[in-house]
Amino acid sequence: MSPDWLDTIHWNPDGLIPAIAQETGTGKVLMLAWMNRESLQRTLETGEAVYWSRSRQRLWHKGESSGNTQRVVQMRLDCDRDTLLLEVEQRGGIACHTGRHNCFYHRYQDGDWQVVEPVLKDPDQMYGDKT
Amino acid sequence: MSPDWLDTIHWNPDGLIPAIAQETGTGKVLMLAWMNRESLQRTLETGEAVYWSRSRQRLWHKGESSGNTQRVVQMRLDCDRDTLLLEVEQRGGIACHTGRHNCFYHRYQDGDWQVVEPVLKDPDQMYGDKT
Repeated sequence: MSPDWLDTIHWNPDGLIPAIAQETGTGKVLMLAWMNRESLQRTLETGEAVYWSRSRQRLWHKGESSGNTQRVVQMRLDCDRDTLLLEVEQRGGIACHTGRHNCFYHRYQDGDWQVVEPVLKDPDQMYGDKT
Repeated sequence: MSPDWLDTIHWNPDGLIPAIAQETGTGKVLMLAWMNRESLQRTLETGEAVYWSRSRQRLWHKGESSGNTQRVVQMRLDCDRDTLLLEVEQRGGIACHTGRHNCFYHRYQDGDWQVVEPVLKDPDQMYGDKT
């Protein structure tokens, strides 16, 4: 049996809920990922963000490869109970797999999406160069 | 034919993308809603957030009933091109249909979701009392 607080969440047909990660202090929105029941429960237990990777179909402890984990300061749920908002401390100051501070680095300008955020660290260094 | 900038977005199987609305100035995350191609194009044309209401299956010009529209300051797209982040000016200072500043008013505390944000305006006043 799962706890009541998990049952009051409105999971989508795939058993998932979108989770927005917002950086504590700066208020910057870092990324959006997805959680299932197990990942949310593990997030609570460990105090670090654990998502559900839809592409890999497995639990994804954010930062497990790069070390850029997210310490969860607080968790919020919205009015419709179908979106989570996590206030997190982003270790390493890099949330994006491209080596940028956050994932929202395309800005709509002049009729197209322009890259407006710098790469802070080479992804090969973050994940180890496999070549 | 739709513009290229719409085609580079990774729409989900329902033709939708989640859009996070973040308040300019405060940096507060107000809500998450969904957009389809038409709603995003209208958002760009009008400069105000237009979402796709999944429950009503129609375009939803945010604030059309309450007057609490969202002026879009900038639009961002994430690394995977499957999430939007809108920086908005929230007219009326109320984004949530419950009359609260934002939708994320449940906070996880002591084993359950607790309401931690006040109602700023009676929803009956926002939408007109139908009784």
